[in-house]
Amino acid sequence: MEIKLEENEIIDDLEFNGLKIIQNKNWFKFGIDSVLLSDFAKSIKNGAIVLDIGTGTGIISILLSKKTDAKKFVGIEVQKDVANMAIKSVELNNLQNKIEIINDNINNIEKYFNKKYFDCIVTNPPYQKNNTGLKSENEKQLISRHETMCTLEDIIEKSVSLLKDNGEFYMVHRPERLVDIMYLMRKYKLEPKELKFVYPKFGEKANLILIKGVKYANEFLKIHKPLIIYNNDGSYTDEILKIYNKGK
Amino acid sequence: MEIKLEENEIIDDLEFNGLKIIQNKNWFKFGIDSVLLSDFAKSIKNGAIVLDIGTGTGIISILLSKKTDAKKFVGIEVQKDVANMAIKSVELNNLQNKIEIINDNINNIEKYFNKKYFDCIVTNPPYQKNNTGLKSENEKQLISRHETMCTLEDIIEKSVSLLKDNGEFYMVHRPERLVDIMYLMRKYKLEPKELKFVYPKFGEKANLILIKGVKYANEFLKIHKPLIIYNNDGSYTDEILKIYNKGK
Repeated sequence: MEIKLEENEIIDDLEFNGLKIIQNKNWFKFGIDSVLLSDFAKSIKNGAIVLDIGTGTGIISILLSKKTDAKKFVGIEVQKDVANMAIKSVELNNLQNKIEIINDNINNIEKYFNKKYFDCIVTNPPYQKNNTGLKSENEKQLISRHETMCTLEDIIEKSVSLLKDNGEFYMVHRPERLVDIMYLMRKYKLEPKELKFVYPKFGEKANLILIKGVKYANEFLKIHKPLIIYNNDGSYTDEILKIYNKGK
Repeated sequence: MEIKLEENEIIDDLEFNGLKIIQNKNWFKFGIDSVLLSDFAKSIKNGAIVLDIGTGTGIISILLSKKTDAKKFVGIEVQKDVANMAIKSVELNNLQNKIEIINDNINNIEKYFNKKYFDCIVTNPPYQKNNTGLKSENEKQLISRHETMCTLEDIIEKSVSLLKDNGEFYMVHRPERLVDIMYLMRKYKLEPKELKFVYPKFGEKANLILIKGVKYANEFLKIHKPLIIYNNDGSYTDEILKIYNKGK
Protein backbone atom coordinates (compact mmCIF):
# COMPACT_ATOMS: atom_id res chain seq x y z
CA MET A 1 0.00 0.00 0.00
CA GLU A 2 1.24 3.44 -0.90
CA ILE A 3 0.97 6.06 1.84
CA LYS A 4 0.77 9.68 0.71
CA LEU A 5 2.42 12.06 3.17
CA GLU A 6 1.13 15.61 3.60
CA GLU A 7 3.46 18.59 3.91
CA ASN A 8 5.53 18.45 7.14
CA GLU A 9 4.63 14.79 7.74
CA ILE A 10 7.50 12.43 8.47
CA ILE A 11 7.73 8.69 9.13
CA ASP A 12 9.51 7.71 12.36
CA ASP A 13 10.73 4.20 13.16
CA LEU A 14 9.41 3.05 16.58
CA GLU A 15 12.27 0.53 16.83
CA PHE A 16 9.81 -2.06 18.10
CA ASN A 17 8.63 -5.01 16.00
CA GLY A 18 9.20 -2.99 12.83
CA LEU A 19 6.47 -0.48 13.74
CA LYS A 20 6.50 2.99 12.20
CA ILE A 21 4.52 6.15 12.93
CA ILE A 22 3.67 9.23 10.92
CA GLN A 23 4.03 12.56 12.71
CA ASN A 24 3.71 16.19 11.68
CA LYS A 25 6.81 18.20 12.45
CA ASN A 26 4.75 21.21 13.54
CA TRP A 27 2.20 19.46 15.73
CA PHE A 28 2.20 17.68 19.06
CA LYS A 29 4.54 14.69 18.77
CA PHE A 30 4.31 11.53 20.84
CA GLY A 31 6.54 11.46 23.90
CA ILE A 32 7.86 9.12 26.53
CA ASP A 33 4.48 9.33 28.31
CA SER A 34 2.83 7.33 25.51
CA VAL A 35 5.60 4.75 25.56
CA LEU A 36 5.37 4.39 29.36
CA LEU A 37 1.59 4.07 29.22
CA SER A 38 1.86 1.33 26.58
CA ASP A 39 4.23 -0.54 28.88
CA PHE A 40 2.06 0.04 31.96
CA ALA A 41 -1.01 -1.28 30.09
CA LYS A 42 0.68 -4.27 28.52
CA SER A 43 -1.14 -6.77 30.76
CA ILE A 44 -4.37 -6.08 28.84
CA LYS A 45 -6.21 -9.38 28.57
CA ASN A 46 -6.10 -11.56 25.48
CA GLY A 47 -9.06 -10.91 23.21
CA ALA A 48 -9.86 -7.54 24.81
CA ILE A 49 -11.66 -4.77 22.95
CA VAL A 50 -9.80 -1.57 23.78
CA LEU A 51 -10.72 2.11 23.44
CA ASP A 52 -7.91 4.68 23.11
CA ILE A 53 -9.34 8.09 24.03
CA GLY A 54 -7.61 10.98 22.29
CA THR A 55 -5.40 8.65 20.28
CA GLY A 56 -3.49 11.47 18.52
CA THR A 57 -0.91 9.88 16.22
CA GLY A 58 -2.28 6.45 17.20
CA ILE A 59 0.97 5.65 19.00
CA ILE A 60 -0.52 3.87 22.03
CA SER A 61 -2.85 1.61 20.04
CA ILE A 62 -0.11 0.85 17.52
CA LEU A 63 2.37 -0.14 20.25
CA LEU A 64 -0.22 -2.13 22.22
CA SER A 65 -1.30 -4.02 19.10
CA LYS A 66 2.12 -5.69 19.21
CA LYS A 67 2.65 -5.76 22.98
CA THR A 68 -0.66 -7.52 23.77
CA ASP A 69 -3.05 -10.07 22.31
CA ALA A 70 -5.98 -7.69 22.46
CA LYS A 71 -8.52 -8.35 19.70
CA LYS A 72 -9.33 -4.83 18.61
CA PHE A 73 -8.41 -1.20 19.28
CA VAL A 74 -10.62 1.81 18.65
CA GLY A 75 -8.81 5.16 18.70
CA ILE A 76 -10.95 8.27 18.91
CA GLU A 77 -9.41 11.62 17.98
CA VAL A 78 -11.25 14.94 17.77
CA GLN A 79 -8.85 16.68 15.36
CA LYS A 80 -9.67 15.67 11.77
CA ASP A 81 -6.22 16.01 10.24
CA VAL A 82 -4.58 14.31 13.23
CA ALA A 83 -7.07 11.44 12.93
CA ASN A 84 -6.29 11.19 9.19
CA MET A 85 -2.59 10.95 10.01
CA ALA A 86 -3.31 8.17 12.53
CA ILE A 87 -5.32 6.29 9.88
CA LYS A 88 -2.31 6.44 7.57
CA SER A 89 -0.03 5.13 10.33
CA VAL A 90 -2.40 2.21 10.86
CA GLU A 91 -2.27 1.45 7.14
CA LEU A 92 1.50 1.89 7.04
CA ASN A 93 1.79 -0.86 9.68
CA ASN A 94 -0.90 -3.04 8.06
CA LEU A 95 -2.96 -2.93 11.25
CA GLN A 96 -6.32 -2.09 9.64
CA ASN A 97 -7.77 -5.38 10.90
CA LYS A 98 -6.84 -4.51 14.50
CA ILE A 99 -7.08 -0.73 14.84
CA GLU A 100 -10.00 1.51 13.89
CA ILE A 101 -9.64 5.31 14.07
CA ILE A 102 -12.73 7.45 14.61
CA ASN A 103 -12.66 11.21 14.11
CA ASP A 104 -14.99 12.64 16.73
CA ASN A 105 -15.21 14.03 20.24
CA ILE A 106 -15.31 11.44 23.05
CA ASN A 107 -18.50 13.14 24.19
CA ASN A 108 -20.16 11.75 21.03
CA ILE A 109 -18.96 8.17 21.55
CA GLU A 110 -22.50 6.85 22.08
CA LYS A 111 -23.10 7.37 18.36
CA TYR A 112 -20.72 4.50 17.69
CA PHE A 113 -20.78 2.06 20.61
CA ASN A 114 -23.18 0.73 23.23
CA LYS A 115 -22.51 1.12 26.92
CA LYS A 116 -20.32 -1.60 28.44
CA TYR A 117 -18.83 -2.41 25.02
CA PHE A 118 -15.16 -2.16 26.01
CA ASP A 119 -12.95 -4.41 28.16
CA CYS A 120 -10.29 -1.76 28.53
CA ILE A 121 -9.65 1.94 28.02
CA VAL A 122 -6.26 3.61 27.58
CA THR A 123 -5.76 7.35 27.46
CA ASN A 124 -3.07 9.99 27.35
CA PRO A 125 -5.40 12.97 27.71
CA PRO A 126 -4.66 16.71 27.67
CA TYR A 127 -2.87 17.42 30.95
CA GLN A 128 -3.83 21.00 31.62
CA LYS A 129 -7.07 22.53 32.73
CA ASN A 130 -8.48 24.91 30.19
CA ASN A 131 -7.88 27.98 32.32
CA THR A 132 -4.25 27.29 33.20
CA GLY A 133 -0.83 27.34 31.66
CA LEU A 134 0.66 29.00 28.65
CA LYS A 135 -1.58 29.28 25.66
CA SER A 136 0.97 30.47 23.17
CA GLU A 137 0.91 27.16 21.30
CA ASN A 138 -0.70 26.70 17.93
CA GLU A 139 -4.24 25.32 17.85
CA LYS A 140 -3.17 21.67 17.44
CA GLN A 141 -0.91 21.83 20.48
CA LEU A 142 -3.59 23.66 22.43
CA ILE A 143 -6.16 20.90 21.85
CA SER A 144 -3.60 18.18 22.59
CA ARG A 145 -2.41 19.80 25.81
CA HIS A 146 -5.43 21.61 27.26
CA GLU A 147 -8.91 20.42 28.14
CA THR A 148 -10.38 22.45 25.30
CA MET A 149 -12.53 19.75 23.75
CA CYS A 150 -13.15 17.50 26.75
CA THR A 151 -12.31 17.54 30.46
CA LEU A 152 -10.85 14.89 32.74
CA GLU A 153 -14.33 14.49 34.19
CA ASP A 154 -15.76 13.85 30.69
CA ILE A 155 -13.16 11.16 30.09
CA ILE A 156 -13.74 9.41 33.41
CA GLU A 157 -17.52 9.62 33.21
CA LYS A 158 -17.57 8.30 29.63
CA SER A 159 -15.07 5.58 30.47
CA VAL A 160 -17.20 4.17 33.27
CA SER A 161 -20.20 4.13 30.96
CA LEU A 162 -18.28 2.43 28.14
CA LEU A 163 -16.46 -0.19 30.23
CA LYS A 164 -17.83 -3.58 31.13
CA ASP A 165 -18.07 -4.23 34.86
CA ASN A 166 -14.53 -4.90 36.12
CA GLY A 167 -13.21 -3.31 32.93
CA GLU A 168 -9.77 -1.72 33.18
CA PHE A 169 -8.72 1.90 32.67
CA TYR A 170 -5.09 2.97 32.12
CA MET A 171 -4.07 6.62 32.05
CA VAL A 172 -0.90 8.70 32.06
CA HIS A 173 -1.14 12.18 33.56
CA ARG A 174 0.67 14.83 35.59
CA PRO A 175 1.24 14.56 39.36
CA GLU A 176 -0.32 17.98 40.03
CA ARG A 177 -3.65 16.56 38.82
CA LEU A 178 -3.52 13.61 41.22
CA VAL A 179 -6.25 14.93 43.51
CA ASP A 180 -8.58 15.61 40.57
CA ILE A 181 -7.90 12.11 39.23
CA MET A 182 -8.41 10.30 42.54
CA TYR A 183 -11.49 12.32 43.40
CA LEU A 184 -13.19 11.83 40.03
CA MET A 185 -12.31 8.15 39.70
CA ARG A 186 -13.71 7.40 43.15
CA LYS A 187 -16.76 9.57 42.46
CA TYR A 188 -17.62 7.66 39.26
CA LYS A 189 -16.67 4.27 40.77
CA LEU A 190 -13.69 3.74 38.50
CA GLU A 191 -11.67 2.72 41.55
CA PRO A 192 -7.93 3.53 41.42
CA LYS A 193 -6.06 0.24 41.94
CA GLU A 194 -2.48 0.91 40.86
CA LEU A 195 -0.34 4.03 40.77
CA LYS A 196 3.21 4.52 39.55
CA PHE A 197 5.19 7.74 39.86
CA VAL A 198 7.71 8.57 37.18
CA TYR A 199 10.74 10.63 38.21
CA PRO A 200 13.12 12.20 35.68
CA LYS A 201 16.04 11.45 38.01
CA PHE A 202 16.54 10.07 41.48
CA GLY A 203 15.98 12.86 44.02
CA GLU A 204 13.92 15.03 41.66
CA LYS A 205 10.18 15.58 41.75
CA ALA A 206 7.86 13.21 39.89
CA ASN A 207 6.71 14.55 36.53
CA LEU A 208 4.34 11.82 35.34
CA ILE A 209 1.94 9.37 36.94
CA LEU A 210 0.60 6.12 35.56
CA ILE A 211 -2.71 5.03 36.99
CA LYS A 212 -4.85 1.94 36.61
CA GLY A 213 -8.52 1.91 37.63
CA VAL A 214 -11.04 -0.91 37.61
CA LYS A 215 -14.77 -0.27 37.25
CA TYR A 216 -16.66 -1.08 40.46
CA ALA A 217 -13.58 -2.66 42.11
CA ASN A 218 -13.09 -2.71 45.88
CA GLU A 219 -11.05 0.03 47.53
CA PHE A 220 -7.36 -0.74 47.75
CA LEU A 221 -4.53 1.10 46.03
CA LYS A 222 -1.16 -0.42 45.20
CA ILE A 223 1.62 2.13 44.75
CA HIS A 224 4.43 0.73 42.65
CA LYS A 225 8.07 1.44 43.25
CA PRO A 226 9.15 4.62 41.47
CA LEU A 227 10.12 4.56 37.82
CA ILE A 228 13.26 6.62 37.18
CA ILE A 229 13.97 7.78 33.63
CA TYR A 230 17.56 8.98 33.68
CA ASN A 231 20.66 7.94 35.57
CA ASN A 232 22.66 10.76 37.13
CA ASP A 233 24.96 10.79 34.09
CA GLY A 234 22.00 11.53 31.80
CA SER A 235 21.78 8.04 30.27
CA TYR A 236 18.54 6.05 30.39
CA THR A 237 18.09 3.71 33.36
CA ASP A 238 18.00 -0.04 32.72
CA GLU A 239 14.26 -0.05 33.35
CA ILE A 240 13.64 2.52 30.62
CA LEU A 241 15.94 0.74 28.18
CA LYS A 242 13.95 -2.43 28.84
CA ILE A 243 10.66 -0.64 28.19
CA TYR A 244 11.95 0.79 24.92
CA ASN A 245 13.38 -2.45 23.63
CA LYS A 246 11.51 -5.44 24.90
CA GLY A 247 8.98 -7.37 22.85
CA LYS A 248 5.64 -8.87 23.72
CA MET B 1 7.96 18.19 89.71
CA GLU B 2 7.86 14.52 90.56
CA ILE B 3 6.35 12.25 87.91
CA LYS B 4 4.90 8.95 89.13
CA LEU B 5 5.30 6.17 86.57
CA GLU B 6 2.73 3.37 86.33
CA GLU B 7 3.72 -0.25 85.85
CA ASN B 8 5.40 -0.83 82.46
CA GLU B 9 5.88 2.89 81.86
CA ILE B 10 9.34 4.02 80.83
CA ILE B 11 10.91 7.41 80.07
CA ASP B 12 12.62 7.69 76.69
CA ASP B 13 14.97 10.50 75.70
CA LEU B 14 13.88 12.13 72.43
CA GLU B 15 17.44 13.39 71.85
CA PHE B 16 16.05 16.74 70.78
CA ASN B 17 16.26 19.89 72.92
CA GLY B 18 16.30 17.73 76.05
CA LEU B 19 12.77 16.45 75.45
CA LYS B 20 11.63 13.21 77.03
CA ILE B 21 8.56 11.04 76.54
CA ILE B 22 6.80 8.46 78.69
CA GLN B 23 5.72 5.29 76.94
CA ASN B 24 4.14 2.02 78.06
CA LYS B 25 6.18 -0.99 77.05
CA ASN B 26 3.04 -2.98 76.21
CA TRP B 27 1.15 -0.37 74.24
CA PHE B 28 1.51 1.33 70.89
CA LYS B 29 4.83 3.23 70.90
CA PHE B 30 5.60 6.28 68.80
CA GLY B 31 7.39 5.55 65.55
CA ILE B 32 9.25 7.25 62.77
CA ASP B 33 5.90 8.38 61.33
CA SER B 34 5.39 10.82 64.23
CA VAL B 35 8.92 12.15 63.87
CA LEU B 36 8.49 12.64 60.11
CA LEU B 37 5.14 14.36 60.59
CA SER B 38 6.67 16.75 63.14
CA ASP B 39 9.33 17.62 60.60
CA PHE B 40 6.84 17.96 57.74
CA ALA B 41 4.67 20.31 59.86
CA LYS B 42 7.51 22.42 61.22
CA SER B 43 6.55 25.45 59.09
CA ILE B 44 3.50 25.98 61.31
CA LYS B 45 3.07 29.75 61.68
CA ASN B 46 4.28 31.67 64.70
CA GLY B 47 1.53 32.14 67.27
CA ALA B 48 -0.64 29.36 65.82
CA ILE B 49 -3.17 27.42 67.88
CA VAL B 50 -2.73 23.77 66.94
CA LEU B 51 -4.94 20.71 67.43
CA ASP B 52 -3.28 17.27 67.54
CA ILE B 53 -5.98 14.67 66.83
CA GLY B 54 -5.31 11.29 68.47
CA THR B 55 -2.22 12.57 70.22
CA GLY B 56 -1.35 9.23 71.84
CA THR B 57 1.84 9.70 73.87
CA GLY B 58 1.77 13.40 72.93
CA ILE B 59 4.90 12.96 70.84
CA ILE B 60 3.91 15.21 67.93
CA SER B 61 2.81 18.15 70.08
CA ILE B 62 5.85 17.77 72.31
CA LEU B 63 8.27 17.81 69.37
CA LEU B 64 6.43 20.66 67.61
CA SER B 65 6.44 22.76 70.77
CA LYS B 66 10.21 23.03 70.32
CA LYS B 67 10.40 22.96 66.52
CA THR B 68 7.93 25.85 66.01
CA ASP B 69 6.82 29.08 67.62
CA ALA B 70 3.20 27.98 67.79
CA LYS B 71 1.37 29.50 70.76
CA LYS B 72 -0.59 26.50 71.99
CA PHE B 73 -1.18 22.83 71.31
CA VAL B 74 -4.29 20.85 72.19
CA GLY B 75 -3.89 17.08 72.04
CA ILE B 76 -7.05 15.02 72.08
CA GLU B 77 -6.80 11.32 72.93
CA VAL B 78 -9.74 8.93 73.36
CA GLN B 79 -7.95 6.38 75.60
CA LYS B 80 -7.98 7.55 79.22
CA ASP B 81 -4.79 5.90 80.42
CA VAL B 82 -2.93 6.91 77.26
CA ALA B 83 -4.12 10.50 77.74
CA ASN B 84 -2.95 10.38 81.37
CA MET B 85 0.46 9.22 80.22
CA ALA B 86 0.62 12.12 77.72
CA ILE B 87 -0.29 14.57 80.50
CA LYS B 88 2.65 13.24 82.54
CA SER B 89 4.99 13.66 79.55
CA VAL B 90 3.83 17.26 79.19
CA GLU B 91 4.61 17.84 82.87
CA LEU B 92 7.93 16.01 82.63
CA ASN B 93 8.98 18.50 79.92
CA ASN B 94 7.46 21.51 81.74
CA LEU B 95 5.23 22.24 78.76
CA GLN B 96 1.95 22.71 80.68
CA ASN B 97 1.74 26.31 79.49
CA LYS B 98 1.96 25.22 75.85
CA ILE B 99 0.28 21.82 75.61
CA GLU B 100 -3.16 20.82 76.86
CA ILE B 101 -4.26 17.17 76.72
CA ILE B 102 -7.98 16.35 76.51
CA ASN B 103 -9.28 12.84 77.08
CA ASP B 104 -12.21 12.44 74.71
CA ASN B 105 -13.27 11.29 71.26
CA ILE B 106 -12.65 13.78 68.44
CA ASN B 107 -16.34 13.42 67.62
CA ASN B 108 -17.05 15.29 70.89
CA ILE B 109 -14.64 18.16 70.22
CA GLU B 110 -17.47 20.72 69.97
CA LYS B 111 -17.87 20.38 73.75
CA TYR B 112 -14.51 22.16 74.13
CA PHE B 113 -13.93 24.51 71.19
CA ASN B 114 -15.89 26.67 68.78
CA LYS B 115 -15.76 26.16 65.04
CA LYS B 116 -12.85 27.85 63.28
CA TYR B 117 -10.86 27.98 66.53
CA PHE B 118 -7.66 26.39 65.20
CA ASP B 119 -4.98 27.66 62.82
CA CYS B 120 -3.54 24.23 62.24
CA ILE B 121 -4.31 20.54 62.77
CA VAL B 122 -1.78 17.72 62.93
CA THR B 123 -2.72 14.06 63.07
CA ASN B 124 -1.22 10.61 62.98
CA PRO B 125 -4.52 8.74 62.89
CA PRO B 126 -5.24 4.98 62.93
CA TYR B 127 -4.17 3.71 59.52
CA GLN B 128 -6.45 0.77 58.99
CA LYS B 129 -10.12 0.59 58.23
CA ASN B 130 -12.08 -1.14 60.93
CA ASN B 131 -12.88 -4.17 58.81
CA THR B 132 -9.37 -4.88 57.58
CA GLY B 133 -6.08 -6.26 58.80
CA LEU B 134 -5.05 -8.40 61.70
CA LYS B 135 -6.95 -7.86 64.91
CA SER B 136 -4.80 -9.97 67.16
CA GLU B 137 -3.43 -6.92 68.96
CA ASN B 138 -4.43 -5.93 72.45
CA GLU B 139 -7.17 -3.35 72.83
CA LYS B 140 -4.79 -0.37 73.10
CA GLN B 141 -3.04 -1.30 69.86
CA LEU B 142 -6.37 -1.96 68.20
CA ILE B 143 -7.65 1.54 68.97
CA SER B 144 -4.35 3.12 67.94
CA ARG B 145 -4.15 1.24 64.65
CA HIS B 146 -7.75 0.72 63.51
CA GLU B 147 -10.59 3.15 62.94
CA THR B 148 -12.45 1.77 65.93
CA MET B 149 -13.28 5.06 67.63
CA CYS B 150 -13.29 7.41 64.65
CA THR B 151 -12.86 7.13 60.90
CA LEU B 152 -10.74 9.08 58.46
CA GLU B 153 -13.92 10.79 57.31
CA ASP B 154 -14.69 11.85 60.91
CA ILE B 155 -11.21 13.36 61.22
CA ILE B 156 -11.40 15.26 57.94
CA GLU B 157 -14.95 16.49 58.48
CA LYS B 158 -14.16 17.66 62.04
CA SER B 159 -10.91 19.25 60.90
CA VAL B 160 -12.61 21.42 58.29
CA SER B 161 -15.14 22.55 60.87
CA LEU B 162 -12.46 23.34 63.47
CA LEU B 163 -10.00 25.12 61.17
CA LYS B 164 -10.07 28.79 60.35
CA ASP B 165 -10.40 29.56 56.62
CA ASN B 166 -6.99 28.87 55.02
CA GLY B 167 -6.08 26.83 58.11
CA GLU B 168 -3.52 24.06 57.57
CA PHE B 169 -3.88 20.32 58.06
CA TYR B 170 -0.88 17.95 58.28
CA MET B 171 -1.32 14.18 58.32
CA VAL B 172 0.83 11.06 58.07
CA HIS B 173 -0.85 7.96 56.66
CA ARG B 174 -0.37 4.85 54.53
CA PRO B 175 -0.08 4.95 50.72
CA GLU B 176 -2.86 2.40 50.25
CA ARG B 177 -5.30 4.93 51.74
CA LEU B 178 -4.29 7.67 49.29
CA VAL B 179 -7.51 7.50 47.30
CA ASP B 180 -9.64 7.71 50.45
CA ILE B 181 -7.59 10.66 51.66
CA MET B 182 -7.68 12.59 48.37
CA TYR B 183 -11.35 11.89 47.85
CA LEU B 184 -12.43 12.93 51.34
CA MET B 185 -10.20 16.00 51.53
CA ARG B 186 -11.53 17.30 48.20
CA LYS B 187 -15.08 16.41 49.21
CA TYR B 188 -14.85 18.46 52.42
CA LYS B 189 -12.85 21.27 50.77
CA LEU B 190 -9.69 20.59 52.74
CA GLU B 191 -7.73 20.83 49.51
CA PRO B 192 -4.58 18.66 49.30
CA LYS B 193 -1.67 21.01 48.54
CA GLU B 194 1.49 19.02 49.29
CA LEU B 195 2.29 15.32 49.25
CA LYS B 196 5.49 13.53 50.15
CA PHE B 197 6.06 9.80 49.73
CA VAL B 198 8.34 8.03 52.18
CA TYR B 199 10.26 4.99 50.91
CA PRO B 200 12.10 2.59 53.23
CA LYS B 201 14.85 2.22 50.62
CA PHE B 202 15.50 3.38 47.09
CA GLY B 203 13.70 1.06 44.67
CA GLU B 204 11.21 -0.20 47.25
CA LYS B 205 7.54 0.69 47.52
CA ALA B 206 6.47 3.73 49.55
CA ASN B 207 5.23 2.84 53.03
CA LEU B 208 4.18 6.25 54.37
CA ILE B 209 2.73 9.45 52.97
CA LEU B 210 2.86 12.95 54.40
CA ILE B 211 0.08 15.23 53.26
CA LYS B 212 -0.71 18.89 53.77
CA GLY B 213 -4.15 20.31 53.09
CA VAL B 214 -5.42 23.88 53.29
CA LYS B 215 -9.06 24.68 54.01
CA TYR B 216 -10.80 26.20 50.97
CA ALA B 217 -7.51 26.53 49.02
CA ASN B 218 -7.39 26.46 45.24
CA GLU B 219 -6.71 23.19 43.45
CA PHE B 220 -3.04 22.51 42.88
CA LEU B 221 -0.96 19.72 44.36
CA LYS B 222 2.80 19.85 44.84
CA ILE B 223 4.43 16.44 45.07
CA HIS B 224 7.77 16.63 46.88
CA LYS B 225 10.80 14.60 45.96
CA PRO B 226 10.75 11.22 47.70
CA LEU B 227 12.02 10.84 51.25
CA ILE B 228 14.18 7.74 51.62
CA ILE B 229 14.75 6.32 55.11
CA TYR B 230 17.61 3.86 54.74
CA ASN B 231 20.67 3.69 52.57
CA ASN B 232 21.31 0.37 50.87
CA ASP B 233 23.70 -0.58 53.69
CA GLY B 234 20.90 -0.20 56.26
CA SER B 235 22.14 3.09 57.74
CA TYR B 236 19.90 6.17 57.89
CA THR B 237 20.10 8.54 54.93
CA ASP B 238 21.47 12.03 55.51
CA GLU B 239 17.98 13.47 55.21
CA ILE B 240 16.68 11.28 58.05
CA LEU B 241 19.71 12.03 60.23
CA LYS B 242 19.02 15.71 59.67
CA ILE B 243 15.36 15.29 60.68
CA TYR B 244 16.34 13.42 63.82
CA ASN B 245 18.99 15.87 64.94
CA LYS B 246 18.27 19.36 63.81
CA GLY B 247 16.82 22.04 66.04
CA LYS B 248 14.25 24.70 65.48
